[in-house]
Amino acid sequence: MSNRLIQSFDAVELESGQSLSGVEVAYQTWGALNNERNNAVVVFHSMSGDSDAASWWNAIVGPGRAICTNTYFVICANLLGSCYGTTGPTSINPATGKAYRGDFPVCTVRDQVQLQRRLLEELGVREVECVIGGSLGGFLALEWAVLDPTLKKVVAVTSSGRHSAWCIGWTEAQRQAIFTDPNWNEGNYEPDQPPAAGLANARMIAMLSYRNPASFSARFGRERVPSENNKELAFSVETYLRYQGGKLVDRFDANSYVRLTQTSNSHDLSRGRGSYLDVLRSIRQQVLIVGVDSDILFPLEEQQELADGIPNAEFAIIESPHGHDAFLLEGETLNAIVKKWLGATQKSIYQPHFQHVSCA
Amino acid sequence: MSNRLIQSFDAVELESGQSLSGVEVAYQTWGALNNERNNAVVVFHSMSGDSDAASWWNAIVGPGRAICTNTYFVICANLLGSCYGTTGPTSINPATGKAYRGDFPVCTVRDQVQLQRRLLEELGVREVECVIGGSLGGFLALEWAVLDPTLKKVVAVTSSGRHSAWCIGWTEAQRQAIFTDPNWNEGNYEPDQPPAAGLANARMIAMLSYRNPASFSARFGRERVPSENNKELAFSVETYLRYQGGKLVDRFDANSYVRLTQTSNSHDLSRGRGSYLDVLRSIRQQVLIVGVDSDILFPLEEQQELADGIPNAEFAIIESPHGHDAFLLEGETLNAIVKKWLGATQKSIYQPHFQHVSCA
Repeated sequence: MSNRLIQSFDAVELESGQSLSGVEVAYQTWGALNNERNNAVVVFHSMSGDSDAASWWNAIVGPGRAICTNTYFVICANLLGSCYGTTGPTSINPATGKAYRGDFPVCTVRDQVQLQRRLLEELGVREVECVIGGSLGGFLALEWAVLDPTLKKVVAVTSSGRHSAWCIGWTEAQRQAIFTDPNWNEGNYEPDQPPAAGLANARMIAMLSYRNPASFSARFGRERVPSENNKELAFSVETYLRYQGGKLVDRFDANSYVRLTQTSNSHDLSRGRGSYLDVLRSIRQQVLIVGVDSDILFPLEEQQELADGIPNAEFAIIESPHGHDAFLLEGETLNAIVKKWLGATQKSIYQPHFQHVSCA
Repeated sequence: MSNRLIQSFDAVELESGQSLSGVEVAYQTWGALNNERNNAVVVFHSMSGDSDAASWWNAIVGPGRAICTNTYFVICANLLGSCYGTTGPTSINPATGKAYRGDFPVCTVRDQVQLQRRLLEELGVREVECVIGGSLGGFLALEWAVLDPTLKKVVAVTSSGRHSAWCIGWTEAQRQAIFTDPNWNEGNYEPDQPPAAGLANARMIAMLSYRNPASFSARFGRERVPSENNKELAFSVETYLRYQGGKLVDRFDANSYVRLTQTSNSHDLSRGRGSYLDVLRSIRQQVLIVGVDSDILFPLEEQQELADGIPNAEFAIIESPHGHDAFLLEGETLNAIVKKWLGATQKSIYQPHFQHVSCA
């Protein structure tokens, strides 16, 4: 794995009008910037992810992969508000000398993109060849297209042009699970007394949205296994969800979880910019939209609308039983789609055209 | 509305081996039992429902409706473990003189059916013409078919032959939301200090499963409204979910919620009876399966398998944007389907055949 690097920024202005001082951005890079300084590819992680894209997207990011680290200078930065090195709720607020915790502000998708654009400037990148992300990462990719006309290509996987009421509803159920925890205390819990049960429950809810009836039924059926206390039998799917919940608690902060779901909710390409379809029409980049047929969080119709609305967009559909999580679980298929598309868009004669690419 | 009546049972043996004494069943009836005592129709409510079927299913139960109260003797009983009159966690345990609360046992779908069969015996019913229910109510309808060969007809709406891993997972996320509430105390909370936030959160999660991306997005979009504290704006869908959560808290008990989700999880027509398909094949009644194309909780494939496996079954699909809740929200369409089917099954020349009935 590449070393995690830190870039500091004295002040970061947010859309809310609030500002953060002494911001650190944790990021990783692979490959090298070319002499023209125009071979950068920015990879965005999804909500609970980190900057190590070559690990969690190893099917897509690496030598010979779609995001080829021999060809491209690949950058992945941890999101503002997260807990993997970039400034977030667990960081020290320079104004108080104490951790921000519940006082950490909501950062929008646009805030995130603007900060990462500053990071690329610091790294000497002149033009970005491509931005790519799945889920929340796809929000940043699409928003970058609107904010930066010099950007060339965009790949948004299992994503949307604006966070729907459906998705906002899911995140609200998850936040309320955290708020219900007796340790929550408006986010001002002690680090050694986090709202663990609430955060675990939020993750359990999220896991349902990331998967699919068919994948759950095929994997777990109605099998029963000894429960954690060994006193009784539990359904296998129950212990699986509880295990997944506990795993997130071990690696993630509840305030970060709350704030990053709110970051997702801020996403709307058309916010303050006129009609949604007009904004899509204004996007000049070559765009690849990739959906998953079994994704219950981002239905294909929503992504079809996005692909139909953006002039130079293609729409590829992955056929998979894994639901939303296919953007991680179907790495090889996704790699093939992105690789083919990047290859096609390299050719000067290439004319984008709408096309369904079904991959079994 | 018909008066709520109470039938008492000295002892009720449960599948778990536990038994309940002094059980009361709250029920309502409409119409009159005929001289042959064979015109009974039993209606089952879903998880948080009550015995007033002519109210919550007024499109289907009433004079001239599919379940015509001029023709049939219609009975609807509150489920064991609920909190609408039938013995449940809020009832006094005769052995202790105190409310059962967290000690109330899990009652299976089979326990529920056996108790309601005893109720019909008390009411003088000789043969049951039809049983009908949606969601959990459909579980009881199908289970009754297996337990009682003298039953003639079964209607199961947005339901399944066995609660899937997917559905069990949803209920587990809801139970954990309740368990996270500081007032939960293993179910032994004081009546005036219920785990309100946890129960509200459980309902919010459930509401997502009852609806659909399209219905949420069409209804709420990304509209913002003043939040409950009037200090900030919230997404309309957030306040809607919180409102629905609060509404359930006002009318439902958290222990009942936990126990009835566990009742749902017990549902498997084939449990202890051999292979699932063999059990379906053994069902002799005329059966109508009604699914909803946008139901994310009970996918059509699952109901198709049920309809394919039962020899005398028909499968009707309601086309609706409302998801699982269409079994309540699309009352008129459902009424037309059930009425047509009941009419067809009356004719002696009727031969059941698989058939899709699509209703816009």
